Amino acid sequence: MHELRKDPLLCRWVAVTSESKSPGEYCLPEERSEGTACVLCPGRERETPPEIAAIREGGRWWTRVIPNFRPVLHVEGDLGRRGLGMYDRMNSVGANEIIIDSPEHDKQPEDIGIEQVRRIVRLYRDRVADLEKDSRLRYILIFKNSGKGAGAIYSHPHSEVMATPVIPKLIKEELDGAKQYYAYKERCIFCDIMREESRNGERVVFETRDFFSFSPFAPKFPFETWILPKSHSCAFQQTGESEMEDLSLMFCTVLKKMRAILGDSPYNYFFHTAPNRIPRRDHWHTLGDDFHWHIEIVPRLLMTSGFEQGSDFYVLTTSPEDAAKYLREA
Amino acid sequence: MHELRKDPLLCRWVAVTSESKSPGEYCLPEERSEGTACVLCPGRERETPPEIAAIREGGRWWTRVIPNFRPVLHVEGDLGRRGLGMYDRMNSVGANEIIIDSPEHDKQPEDIGIEQVRRIVRLYRDRVADLEKDSRLRYILIFKNSGKGAGAIYSHPHSEVMATPVIPKLIKEELDGAKQYYAYKERCIFCDIMREESRNGERVVFETRDFFSFSPFAPKFPFETWILPKSHSCAFQQTGESEMEDLSLMFCTVLKKMRAILGDSPYNYFFHTAPNRIPRRDHWHTLGDDFHWHIEIVPRLLMTSGFEQGSDFYVLTTSPEDAAKYLREA
Repeated sequence: MHELRKDPLLCRWVAVTSESKSPGEYCLPEERSEGTACVLCPGRERETPPEIAAIREGGRWWTRVIPNFRPVLHVEGDLGRRGLGMYDRMNSVGANEIIIDSPEHDKQPEDIGIEQVRRIVRLYRDRVADLEKDSRLRYILIFKNSGKGAGAIYSHPHSEVMATPVIPKLIKEELDGAKQYYAYKERCIFCDIMREESRNGERVVFETRDFFSFSPFAPKFPFETWILPKSHSCAFQQTGESEMEDLSLMFCTVLKKMRAILGDSPYNYFFHTAPNRIPRRDHWHTLGDDFHWHIEIVPRLLMTSGFEQGSDFYVLTTSPEDAAKYLREA
Repeated sequence: MHELRKDPLLCRWVAVTSESKSPGEYCLPEERSEGTACVLCPGRERETPPEIAAIREGGRWWTRVIPNFRPVLHVEGDLGRRGLGMYDRMNSVGANEIIIDSPEHDKQPEDIGIEQVRRIVRLYRDRVADLEKDSRLRYILIFKNSGKGAGAIYSHPHSEVMATPVIPKLIKEELDGAKQYYAYKERCIFCDIMREESRNGERVVFETRDFFSFSPFAPKFPFETWILPKSHSCAFQQTGESEMEDLSLMFCTVLKKMRAILGDSPYNYFFHTAPNRIPRRDHWHTLGDDFHWHIEIVPRLLMTSGFEQGSDFYVLTTSPEDAAKYLREA
């Protein structure tokens, strides 16, 4: 089991295990059985925790959602918010699911084709829409770890869902930043960024009818790429069918472009949507105007150093303009 | 050359190069000549940029400070703050120095002994005191990268100094968090944390006459350890001789304890001191009361995943209580 704790200085929540690893356990080289022995591959469905959702077509499954084998957050129980001396803590209530992105061990969804990407993004949307009904949960994060250098623990293509009973620090910062901008300008900062990028053009990666992708002006990492819906919308889970179709085209294209120039380099992506609405309907109207859901795709090409760790100041060894150029031409 | 850019959403500054690496350059395995060919070793002093400072005793140098071979920030020029459409940027003014921590390629300062640690922390203090005289600079960060997994580009023991013309985001967050607590309690949050930890005892690592070290209640990474001066002080560079002596004992002991349990695992440390006082003397009185300088030592035992990257929410696989117990007993 884990408990959630709040850093009193930075107000960042973390999950702390009650079953600590010893120092020696970190130093062992990690060995996992792969290939035919992969537990996420077809044929081993009975060895996974009970399936939560799946898409089956033509007598086979294309994607499955299962609980994490070793979840950090648990669906049962109450929040148990309580103090401990000067500190704050709560129970590790939430959800922690694995989405198997592909029935084939060696193929990412974009390798299978746009239909598979469509299945995956629909499943993402459905998981967020389902989990946000739970009034104990404040945030639902969809993310992917591809490659060991990006924190992946399986080599089989997969993404994850984490539903937390608090709004994670980075999300809160994005919400606060967007809210401040809105208070000053009475415009959505993301809509303004898209207009600025569209006018300038240098950092644009690709455009579809409904979506826009670009290299941000001041990203954390080289080749970081964002995807935004062109029409203002704060919640990914509200995306309609026609836009989902277009999103599949955008997402599939950008992932293929990344692969074309960066090969199998590790990467993460995550969906930043607004916090859950249902428990907080009263705050909803402002939130809807000032936040804009988006996808951030972040290649993990370099190790961060003590400078980045100690300052949150990043050094970009490839400019966003050059990164966008490579991606546009890929 | 680099330029500094501000993320309009999160207000985080980054440095962007004008000489971009191509995608292929990230995928090459990095090979550096080491051992006798190391440019930081004695005998190759003429091949480094001109020495800024050094400590020489008994006919040899024990530590040298040199400019970074490929600096991100440059001492010359004005700040050049300017807009670009809706964005903000400025020149990459600052300093970027390498401190050679040891004359011996295979020995860390703590292996050589407490005298060497004393030389190093004194040199750190002198570099901060020297650089803070430059009124263009807002912050001076001392940090160390040990091991490739912690971003080190040399295997020779070294640390670095980065002086920036802006206050980096993480420092600003610590200052803001401490200020909010002070406004509410009229007490320094770090002094309160030390009292709480001292009373509880579970997370204490080691104590000397003037310094206190512990595993924070809600850290980012397993085995993260902080060192604080027991007497309230916001600025490391104001530490007197007698306390510096005691700091050497504390720092040397904690680094040796870390090594004893984690071996040669990569780690970073960084000194968080108050921003430069000289250009901003008017704000000084409050700042001095609510901030408390400290050292954070962060082993890099695991890769962060898309969850951490996308949320700034961390999962601790060893509890701070168990980490402190291992370190106390080492």
